[in-house]
Amino acid sequence: MCRLLGYLGSPISLEKLLYSPEHSLIVQSYQPREMNSGVLNADGFGVGWYHSQKDTNPFTYKNILPIWNDVNLPTLSRYVESRCVLGYVRSATAGQAVDLSNCQPFESDRLLCIHNGRIENFRQTLYRAIRDRLSDVAYQGIKGNTDSEHIFALLLDELQAQPSATLEQALQTVLLDLDRLAKSHQVAASINMIVSDGHRLVASRFASDQQAPSLYWLRDDPAFPEAVIIASEPIFAGNWNSFPEQSIITVGEDLEIEIHQI
Amino acid sequence: MCRLLGYLGSPISLEKLLYSPEHSLIVQSYQPREMNSGVLNADGFGVGWYHSQKDTNPFTYKNILPIWNDVNLPTLSRYVESRCVLGYVRSATAGQAVDLSNCQPFESDRLLCIHNGRIENFRQTLYRAIRDRLSDVAYQGIKGNTDSEHIFALLLDELQAQPSATLEQALQTVLLDLDRLAKSHQVAASINMIVSDGHRLVASRFASDQQAPSLYWLRDDPAFPEAVIIASEPIFAGNWNSFPEQSIITVGEDLEIEIHQI
Amino acid sequence: MCRLLGYLGSPISLEKLLYSPEHSLIVQSYQPREMNSGVLNADGFGVGWYHSQKDTNPFTYKNILPIWNDVNLPTLSRYVESRCVLGYVRSATAGQAVDLSNCQPFESDRLLCIHNGRIENFRQTLYRAIRDRLSDVAYQGIKGNTDSEHIFALLLDELQAQPSATLEQALQTVLLDLDRLAKSHQVAASINMIVSDGHRLVASRFASDQQAPSLYWLRDDPAFPEAVIIASEPIFAGNWNSFPEQSIITVGEDLEIEIHQI
Amino acid sequence: MCRLLGYLGSPISLEKLLYSPEHSLIVQSYQPREMNSGVLNADGFGVGWYHSQKDTNPFTYKNILPIWNDVNLPTLSRYVESRCVLGYVRSATAGQAVDLSNCQPFESDRLLCIHNGRIENFRQTLYRAIRDRLSDVAYQGIKGNTDSEHIFALLLDELQAQPSATLEQALQTVLLDLDRLAKSHQVAASINMIVSDGHRLVASRFASDQQAPSLYWLRDDPAFPEAVIIASEPIFAGNWNSFPEQSIITVGEDLEIEIHQI
Repeated sequence: MCRLLGYLGSPISLEKLLYSPEHSLIVQSYQPREMNSGVLNADGFGVGWYHSQKDTNPFTYKNILPIWNDVNLPTLSRYVESRCVLGYVRSATAGQAVDLSNCQPFESDRLLCIHNGRIENFRQTLYRAIRDRLSDVAYQGIKGNTDSEHIFALLLDELQAQPSATLEQALQTVLLDLDRLAKSHQVAASINMIVSDGHRLVASRFASDQQAPSLYWLRDDPAFPEAVIIASEPIFAGNWNSFPEQSIITVGEDLEIEIHQI
Repeated sequence: MCRLLGYLGSPISLEKLLYSPEHSLIVQSYQPREMNSGVLNADGFGVGWYHSQKDTNPFTYKNILPIWNDVNLPTLSRYVESRCVLGYVRSATAGQAVDLSNCQPFESDRLLCIHNGRIENFRQTLYRAIRDRLSDVAYQGIKGNTDSEHIFALLLDELQAQPSATLEQALQTVLLDLDRLAKSHQVAASINMIVSDGHRLVASRFASDQQAPSLYWLRDDPAFPEAVIIASEPIFAGNWNSFPEQSIITVGEDLEIEIHQI
Repeated sequence: MCRLLGYLGSPISLEKLLYSPEHSLIVQSYQPREMNSGVLNADGFGVGWYHSQKDTNPFTYKNILPIWNDVNLPTLSRYVESRCVLGYVRSATAGQAVDLSNCQPFESDRLLCIHNGRIENFRQTLYRAIRDRLSDVAYQGIKGNTDSEHIFALLLDELQAQPSATLEQALQTVLLDLDRLAKSHQVAASINMIVSDGHRLVASRFASDQQAPSLYWLRDDPAFPEAVIIASEPIFAGNWNSFPEQSIITVGEDLEIEIHQI
Repeated sequence: MCRLLGYLGSPISLEKLLYSPEHSLIVQSYQPREMNSGVLNADGFGVGWYHSQKDTNPFTYKNILPIWNDVNLPTLSRYVESRCVLGYVRSATAGQAVDLSNCQPFESDRLLCIHNGRIENFRQTLYRAIRDRLSDVAYQGIKGNTDSEHIFALLLDELQAQPSATLEQALQTVLLDLDRLAKSHQVAASINMIVSDGHRLVASRFASDQQAPSLYWLRDDPAFPEAVIIASEPIFAGNWNSFPEQSIITVGEDLEIEIHQI
């Protein structure tokens, strides 16, 4: 279990997004409220963001320390302003190294991706099966050893194979493929994921043979007007909507919300 | 607030002392039960131990990561066997750097020292006043900037100034001096400390104008026979004795306990 | 010995400043050419910069790893664009902890500061003498234990005490004070320093009883037009000017250079 | 390129082995003399050792910092005494993360292994081909992404498949397999490896289509009597023997040397 945060809207400083909310990602790192497993998210963190004026590849910042102990993040958060941000605090699976390579967001060209959930007993179950399905490019691009990065690799391959597919279509295909694969191996899986190309957010709440982790969205809160926020746990009191189970929600550049039941 | 652990007795592997107990120092790092302030002890850790055969300076191992994320500690814990061990998990005062220099135990020649507690608003209150009292040697020996290390420096100076004083006498003198200093500056202070020379443990539960943090001792538990354990929180169910407030307890080489009310 | 870099001029991406030059700060970290002592600058690094549009406190990014191993710096360097940048790679004095608190630049309100040089045997010589001269505010503000940070604290106190003094006047006063102090303690000292308030660069090449480390400046190079660069070693072939020994050079907002012999 | 060190003989403190020699592994980290590529070995390090009395799995200690900056190693080196030690300082391939998972020695049950050399352009060449040959157990056991760990995985599989084979026979089989595989992919490879089970050292100097890195051995030097040392570079002046190219050398419990030409 980790905690996810996505933001799309008018330009915002990371400081306001990460530090101001009373139940911010920083608070969720040491006092999360809705974890299915684990008690903390103190095994590293990462943020990713897009330039607010230039159409370039996104930017990321990661550390293996607990987010509250990073001395650079406060100053970077004052500096960075963006229309599109992903944030992530990690709860490592026991025995997983806290290597930077396993810190999210993962990126590939214009895409950023964060994942919360798990494939049950990943190393002994779907690890090799997933890798065997990957193209050489996706295979060689994997740097760490988390289930999360492997799911993202499947998504990259799907986008490569179906250039005309939208991000949400590709994500749905991957989720259904993984569902079949998980069932055939009789393992549970949960895939709460937020993906972005800098213009839109695409997020899933999905599980195979288990309860999906919590995921919420909120639009145009007075404190964050002209914006949609997606979060594993509400980061402040407000009119948060729970994602339906087994759904993909897309947030467009116009901040319109579309909910697809899978 | 941090969590302390002291062990004196028959040779024990660090593995058994650190990993086996159900409420071990590792568990206390993410789920402590008796903290006066703070919710975790995930801002680094350290262990110190003495050679079980050779009469040499002690050994320490420290890291700024949460203790549960250190990949070296499990293997070192399998290797190290000692009659005298100090262990420590840190809850840094907000805004304190998680530098290694601030990780305990502190050491000087044969002595090891760990401290739990705080001098209220240390930087703005007793920081300079304490430093001004130090000898040049103690002054130059300070590497970090915690109140803990400064209290240890006072102890080293006292031992230097009174070569015939025992460790517990020197500690008592320092506690009383600090009590006066704290009162004169109208600041609260708490000083739970465990000091060792490898042969004995000397520990204090002491506070000035506030409640002292918890501290317990246990002797000859069936699971740890021929040994005394001192801990901020009982590390397993057993006949733990709470330190009286304002006391110094010494554990001799024969494991005899002496309780001095200050 | 460390390596320093200062930039003032038209907005530049950190990427171009830090990564493009053939003898960049990154190269100087593993293959420096003009070190008086030490062979590498691999004990951490830092960069500081000012916002190119907003008049706010500066920003810093630091790490204790060698600069070439930082995974975040390449992406941050793509993102950050500034008119005023300080960069620093560290060669720690043997036995100094590689704590983040000892990584430069140091900052205070609008000021950034980097220092190359050393006070001979600092801990045993001027450490306490300098601290004893500091105001409480400057004293309490020191987070690490380098000579560099203590010299910066003297500068902050001088600016506080002489509000009408310019940065270069305050720096000169500090250098002369330190020269006297060093001579009275019969220790050598060298103080190559770059200080900025975001509008100007003020840099010294100064030594007491030893040779000052190298320091160069360059203006309006074709590759970096409308800019002045100051560097411990030329970062590319060009018309670099060596600082005179015992001098302070100021670079104004108009990029005019003024050389003051001390 | 990295630098390797192996020791087998009478019990020795790590301190003497790692710190005393004038061209120790620590010196080789910042001033190596015989590197085919790279200029430093400052991208982490590791040591592995066996208990001098108990027949148990070996112990390792690793860090991603340059070896000279580790504060724990000096004290651990004072504590650890062993008959069989492997040491390693890393020069990471450009772009490789300095994750702990990529720090050697690698271990599996009683075996420790360190590797110096490289498979040319590994990710794009033999990475997937090697993985496809691995058993599930060896496949799932890989934690990082270095060519070194993959070669060790091949060795583990070979030992599993041929339980009656000696360590040197298994290593030879792996080297010849890799030679064929490298040639079929038209890539160069070099495999200087030291493997131990705590009783013997087995080391190779081997390359496919390129020059093998340097490797030396020394027996019964006056400073290290009753011992064999294997090292990428002589760690002090003495009667060092260069490994023949394409050879495997075994050092038995009786310290007898056997040289096998491959």
